[in-house]
Amino acid sequence: MKSLTFYDTTLRDGAQGEGVSFTVDDKIKIVKKLDDFGIDYIEGGWPGSNPKDEEFFAAIRDLKLKHSKIVAFSSTKRYGIDIKDDLNIKKMIDSGVDTVAIFGKSWDFHVTDVLKISLDENLALIEDTIKYLLENNMQVIFDAEHFFDGFASNPTYALETLKVAYEAGAEVLVLCDTNGGQLPTQLASTIGKVKESLTAPLGIHAHNDSDVAVANSLLAYELGAVQIQGTIGGIGERCGNADLASIIPALKTKYKLELSNLNVNKITSLYYYIMEVANLVPENNHPYVGSSAFTHKAGMHVNALQKNSETYEHVSPQIFGNKRRILVSELSGKSNLKYKLQELGFDLSNFTKEEYRSLATKIKDMEYQGYQFEGAEASLKLLFLREYEDYHSLFGVEDFKIISHNFGKKTDSEAVVKLKVKGESVHIVAEGDGPVNALDNALRKALLSFFPSIDVMKLIDYKVRVLNGKDGTAAKVRVLIESSNTEQSWTTIGVSTNIIQASWQALIDSFEYALYLAKNNGSLSAN
Amino acid sequence: MKSLTFYDTTLRDGAQGEGVSFTVDDKIKIVKKLDDFGIDYIEGGWPGSNPKDEEFFAAIRDLKLKHSKIVAFSSTKRYGIDIKDDLNIKKMIDSGVDTVAIFGKSWDFHVTDVLKISLDENLALIEDTIKYLLENNMQVIFDAEHFFDGFASNPTYALETLKVAYEAGAEVLVLCDTNGGQLPTQLASTIGKVKESLTAPLGIHAHNDSDVAVANSLLAYELGAVQIQGTIGGIGERCGNADLASIIPALKTKYKLELSNLNVNKITSLYYYIMEVANLVPENNHPYVGSSAFTHKAGMHVNALQKNSETYEHVSPQIFGNKRRILVSELSGKSNLKYKLQELGFDLSNFTKEEYRSLATKIKDMEYQGYQFEGAEASLKLLFLREYEDYHSLFGVEDFKIISHNFGKKTDSEAVVKLKVKGESVHIVAEGDGPVNALDNALRKALLSFFPSIDVMKLIDYKVRVLNGKDGTAAKVRVLIESSNTEQSWTTIGVSTNIIQASWQALIDSFEYALYLAKNNGSLSAN
Repeated sequence: MKSLTFYDTTLRDGAQGEGVSFTVDDKIKIVKKLDDFGIDYIEGGWPGSNPKDEEFFAAIRDLKLKHSKIVAFSSTKRYGIDIKDDLNIKKMIDSGVDTVAIFGKSWDFHVTDVLKISLDENLALIEDTIKYLLENNMQVIFDAEHFFDGFASNPTYALETLKVAYEAGAEVLVLCDTNGGQLPTQLASTIGKVKESLTAPLGIHAHNDSDVAVANSLLAYELGAVQIQGTIGGIGERCGNADLASIIPALKTKYKLELSNLNVNKITSLYYYIMEVANLVPENNHPYVGSSAFTHKAGMHVNALQKNSETYEHVSPQIFGNKRRILVSELSGKSNLKYKLQELGFDLSNFTKEEYRSLATKIKDMEYQGYQFEGAEASLKLLFLREYEDYHSLFGVEDFKIISHNFGKKTDSEAVVKLKVKGESVHIVAEGDGPVNALDNALRKALLSFFPSIDVMKLIDYKVRVLNGKDGTAAKVRVLIESSNTEQSWTTIGVSTNIIQASWQALIDSFEYALYLAKNNGSLSAN
Repeated sequence: MKSLTFYDTTLRDGAQGEGVSFTVDDKIKIVKKLDDFGIDYIEGGWPGSNPKDEEFFAAIRDLKLKHSKIVAFSSTKRYGIDIKDDLNIKKMIDSGVDTVAIFGKSWDFHVTDVLKISLDENLALIEDTIKYLLENNMQVIFDAEHFFDGFASNPTYALETLKVAYEAGAEVLVLCDTNGGQLPTQLASTIGKVKESLTAPLGIHAHNDSDVAVANSLLAYELGAVQIQGTIGGIGERCGNADLASIIPALKTKYKLELSNLNVNKITSLYYYIMEVANLVPENNHPYVGSSAFTHKAGMHVNALQKNSETYEHVSPQIFGNKRRILVSELSGKSNLKYKLQELGFDLSNFTKEEYRSLATKIKDMEYQGYQFEGAEASLKLLFLREYEDYHSLFGVEDFKIISHNFGKKTDSEAVVKLKVKGESVHIVAEGDGPVNALDNALRKALLSFFPSIDVMKLIDYKVRVLNGKDGTAAKVRVLIESSNTEQSWTTIGVSTNIIQASWQALIDSFEYALYLAKNNGSLSAN
């Protein structure tokens, strides 16, 4: 193992993160994505620890992967039993993989106080386990658990565990900062000393408890580590693992590595995919891949950016499949607003100073009420169309009513909606899973007979944000709805103290925008 | 300036973060908190850039602070005008502060391509601005914008900007990684070279675009920087600023600095406070201060933790006002569940193996449906009470109905609730801001006449999380409600595809738990 490899543990260490729980199906989906991205090793789970992981290894056996190797994870054998009787080891061999990661204790304190065996007995566990796995035709990665704490406590013994593992046949020795307590200078010094007394290939497995896991992993690479372990988005127990979505971009652009196996330009979509499957909120401010990572707000910056993007961007967003965004916000000057409107496709050549000012005032006012157009450009576009263009909505809204009725464990919701479409009054009723779904169904039912093209429009995301949670159930809420047709997606917004009113606004905008798009591309049949 | 100082720019650079917008009132609240925490310098804003910042400086003038100094921020004077006519500089002087931060260009490329002036003309801007401010009795902090990129491009010129600023009278020269592109090794090497040719006090201002801002700030400290700039929670434009909520804990516990001005044990509450005012979701996995930072999930770890907390914690949570948590989750074994129930105050001495297993199965099943008891311990406690203890709710729920009626821009909601309390049927109606608030009001109205102690119970937070957003408005939602009485707060949960049903479950649990607490502490008057 000479060239640099990436080892992803999203499915094992990542699954230890608070609020994270993958189904077997989720895990298989993630494996396919990681393989497609080009990760070298994918740690699939600990077959001996729970039935779900066992099921995963059974399910993955028939999957044809392009590049990735699936790895099974386990501890060294249990003390005091024959290794053939060790269920963890047996399940690992039975799992059908050909590469395994074995973690063993490198911290003397853990050996004597947690395992409660002698230091030599622990060395024997490491040696016996690795040799046995090699006899069973496995390739072995050795994770030296708590290596850095161990080295600080007893450097001779910590090094001894590495030597034993290497001599037993492990192909890479992974230095683990299990508690995540290492700071860069200390970590670099320890790795330097290890390199002085060992020529074996080293890996790094860092946790982020000190907020420096990315820096530590990059330093380990500089000091010669040939395997970097981490998770996508840094998910994992406590403060998470080293984040491959920050490490890989740095290696690609700042260390200028070719990384020819990796589709670096897919790392943004990989990040969003993993966050969605893990049911975690993606971090807007995530380096390289976050939606705000190349987003500019201050008027001054935007001006300079338009002159030359290098002035305020350390790397180009395109490399990672991300993009630059300019925000319309209360901090923005005329140049931001102009840039945004042009981006939305409006011709501003006849726009007067007064019109700019009145639009900016209106947006400022709505932002004060809780609107945020940063993520809801379809609503911003409609706002502009309604005020400044020769535009009329294809339907008018008169009134609605919702009745939600609870029977024990279930609540039914029914929506009654009155619209005006093409001069006709439409009075319609529909049921749904909850009040908003009932409104959605009623609007759809009402509009479909007039505009059959509405059929291809789908609501794909619905988000609720409580704006001032401390007011309890009387708080203001912001609703964002993302919709799509066969060609594109768009997001709309509503704000109110009443969640139904906020959802209604976003729904109306969403349907109105769908019809606007259909009209503009000619697919609005004249039914 | 010899000893280390902390400089917070949450109110200026932090406010550039996407989705962040502080009112003047917010800013004053934050100043008070930062002062109480013991931050040395608080950058309040840029008085010349917008009326809100100007208003802030007017409002802050009469505020008595214990320790913090308020700083006004601005650029060097504009080229080609007399400094007395420069509005930015004038407003800065008029702002009433005695310390100012002036940023000037250190990157030759910015001078020639953005300012479009000669390199010498830029040096003159720096010199003239600082001298003029000193004549007006200001202390000046000089922010060398893009210093590291400037040093890479033209080291002689970048150093020259520092020298000019220092000779003009700046008391500290802050090296800014404005684009956040620096990696630790490169940054350390540059600072080393600056130290060789300059004896002036240095500061560090790092951005997190490479995910290493904390590491970079700590390295700068190691290399002699005497001022660290950053924001609480790392909020700020793009990927944010260096995070003082990670830097300060490291300096306190790992560099063993006394930091006697700082109330380090308040940093967790400071973090949550800033996130709340900024209307950002706190990061559970934030190092040191996040709710998951010392949270343990895996059965194995919990076992070892109970033996000795040092085994799996790099530092003690108490130092930062944070605490250890053990999660009940599907990954957990019997030891986790037992620990949690004991923590909740249950006596488990008579609990059988079968009872453990059946409870674990029930929790696993509910988690599969979308429940998460990690954050909703009152609901977990009620679940346990209902199943295993001699416990009966003080009221029974029969039925409810909600009518939401829209009139143009407004939607009214009305809830009709049927309860059974002390043998009596109670049929009551109430209005509210939205359907959930109406239910809350109806429940309160119904229970108050039977249990006057319910009067002190308040709903303090209401959160909605869409579990599978991609199903649009038919998605499942999880509702968390936090409530408090005069002594404590508690959180309850509800899950359903119908947001009203989910909110109802959480509301019922919240009222039931309030009555349970009142009964146990004897405050439940026998009305």
